[in-house]
Amino acid sequence: MRDVAIIGIGLVRFGELWEKPLRDLAADAALKAVADAGVDHIDSIVVGSMAGGILVEQEHIGSLLADYLGMGPVPATRVESACASGGMAARAGFIEVASGMSDIVLVAGVEKMTDVSGEVVAAAMATASDQEYEAFYGVTFPGLSAMVARAHMERYGTTAEHLAAVAVKNHANGALNPMAQFRNAITVEDVLGSPLVADPLHMLDCSPVSDGAAALVLCPLEMAKKIAKKAVVRVAGVGAASDTIALYRRDDLTRMSAIERSAQRALQMAGKTPADMHCFEVHDGFTIMEILAIEELGLVARGQGGPATAAGLTARGGKFPVNPSGGLKSKGHPVGATGVSQIAELVIQLRGEAGDRQIKGARMALAQNMGGSGGSSVVHVLELCAP
Amino acid sequence: MRDVAIIGIGLVRFGELWEKPLRDLAADAALKAVADAGVDHIDSIVVGSMAGGILVEQEHIGSLLADYLGMGPVPATRVESACASGGMAARAGFIEVASGMSDIVLVAGVEKMTDVSGEVVAAAMATASDQEYEAFYGVTFPGLSAMVARAHMERYGTTAEHLAAVAVKNHANGALNPMAQFRNAITVEDVLGSPLVADPLHMLDCSPVSDGAAALVLCPLEMAKKIAKKAVVRVAGVGAASDTIALYRRDDLTRMSAIERSAQRALQMAGKTPADMHCFEVHDGFTIMEILAIEELGLVARGQGGPATAAGLTARGGKFPVNPSGGLKSKGHPVGATGVSQIAELVIQLRGEAGDRQIKGARMALAQNMGGSGGSSVVHVLELCAP
Repeated sequence: MRDVAIIGIGLVRFGELWEKPLRDLAADAALKAVADAGVDHIDSIVVGSMAGGILVEQEHIGSLLADYLGMGPVPATRVESACASGGMAARAGFIEVASGMSDIVLVAGVEKMTDVSGEVVAAAMATASDQEYEAFYGVTFPGLSAMVARAHMERYGTTAEHLAAVAVKNHANGALNPMAQFRNAITVEDVLGSPLVADPLHMLDCSPVSDGAAALVLCPLEMAKKIAKKAVVRVAGVGAASDTIALYRRDDLTRMSAIERSAQRALQMAGKTPADMHCFEVHDGFTIMEILAIEELGLVARGQGGPATAAGLTARGGKFPVNPSGGLKSKGHPVGATGVSQIAELVIQLRGEAGDRQIKGARMALAQNMGGSGGSSVVHVLELCAP
Repeated sequence: MRDVAIIGIGLVRFGELWEKPLRDLAADAALKAVADAGVDHIDSIVVGSMAGGILVEQEHIGSLLADYLGMGPVPATRVESACASGGMAARAGFIEVASGMSDIVLVAGVEKMTDVSGEVVAAAMATASDQEYEAFYGVTFPGLSAMVARAHMERYGTTAEHLAAVAVKNHANGALNPMAQFRNAITVEDVLGSPLVADPLHMLDCSPVSDGAAALVLCPLEMAKKIAKKAVVRVAGVGAASDTIALYRRDDLTRMSAIERSAQRALQMAGKTPADMHCFEVHDGFTIMEILAIEELGLVARGQGGPATAAGLTARGGKFPVNPSGGLKSKGHPVGATGVSQIAELVIQLRGEAGDRQIKGARMALAQNMGGSGGSSVVHVLELCAP
């Protein structure tokens, strides 16, 4: 396999972007990434997007983006793995460059979620769960995540305040991120005082419904050393894993084994341990999921994710800074864009371009993106190359 | 890049399979492919599927299939490129093996289309076109293809009888294929006497709405030579290309440039020409599309696809046998399954297992799978390895 580098990133600020259709969002992020990379052509496009069929009645998004960018006839395809669609698209782009099939690959992630009613969004998101055994019976994603949170509370004594601490930290980070959807700091009291969505999850435990896009330009490391305009970031490891799509089939509701397994694969490929990482972006679709993520990544012992978060372990100045971007909670969660935007944030951090939210001295970082209730997970380990 | 081989194939007979949900169809084809390959494990899964969100309210189909097969925690992802989703999934599987990321990759294609009304199917298929500039204004896929057919008639004198000759040939082939949805021979008169769907396309010019699945097992060629239970088929070349997603933006309505470009890439990789191929599976979603395909592949001069078909050039006993399986027209077109099933048919032909429809002495073959109105196309060149 060839070594692969990221030489360009592009982000659209997430939010309720009513003035822009899906194609504009994707193209805006893609053109920023191409400009950031300074390349004059692209050999192939991979787009991560989850639910364009239901949300905007548009599939065939690879062809759409190639066309709208004026990049046809390059190969263009779409990858989907529910909320992990973006991370899986990055993995597909990595493999395409590593294989030698293509040299310069554009990876984009996009979702357009706010053109439809909340009911349609809920139905679209429910397609990430097991339709026949979960969604059909009316359970939604907040409901599934609430069951996980309740199980964690019962088993380990995790509290609503622990959950809230995740949201408080992530909003504190997002307040410093000009590309975040919500840039307001919040308190534990704000979270506990916000409406219950699915007990024990309050509104401020949940990531928002967002429009947005993100993009990366990948190429072989050897090429990157010659053509990159900015510091080169190597993709040191990539790992993906699946688990039962339905939550009821798990042995243990307090585990997300796909996170652990995808991280093990990626870290093994990189020859690193979690302790080697200087910062993390993890999939906090709901606050409980960040607590599970840091447990599955081995940053804390099982059951200790809540108290560790409340104690500041994962804050910007803590031992393991998690979600310096603000995470899904504060930065926003346009589903297909999320995994790509996590990697983009880490590239910004490794390049030292993160301004007020910069993790000082960050040279290695890990991104973890999850689909559904942990039915899929994908992890990327990134490393700053010596100048 | 590592050389890649196909060591197993699995097919579900296409049709109106009301007794089986999507997951069963995909799992049935996958288990047949695994049994055909004789492998005891799979390292990764790629699923091609187009419109599960709209048609069966299920995305996250990679995770679903891994789970339902009991193959979790293997990485599992879904690839979509409208009607080319299956072929693009095969390409992704090829790249994953070629890269060294995974050794044994299961590629599945699946679509479940007959659980909803015709209106919902038409709306789902329209998401392969440009939603904002085509589908929104009410044009459907038969309508788009009819415009292409009309342009070809005006430019080259192609007739309704020429179009019908494609359907007649493909039904003659499909009648010999136990896995085909429609196994009845038809005549030119039958086609011309069938209801007009979109002038000049009659009902029998259109591929049907189908349920179905198909699967392949890929591995490195060197491994295949050691473990394969049957004759080994090498993937000698793979090519994909995009074009404008909307038809109105084309310079020439009688061209499908993505087909030509994807074939050029695949043939160049294989070091072969179209004349080296002993049989072809091409994307006859509508009869006009097979005529365009054989022109874009260079089997006939531009404009000559109709007369050449009527003269028997592409019949089983002709110079260039096209769609020995019966094609989309007779074999059925469960969208995400189609591209995978084309490759499976060619493996059957190259192994010499095609029974009454066997193309004698076939050692090289080409599969061409198209998305939308030619917004994407993917071509695979397959070669029988010497025993």
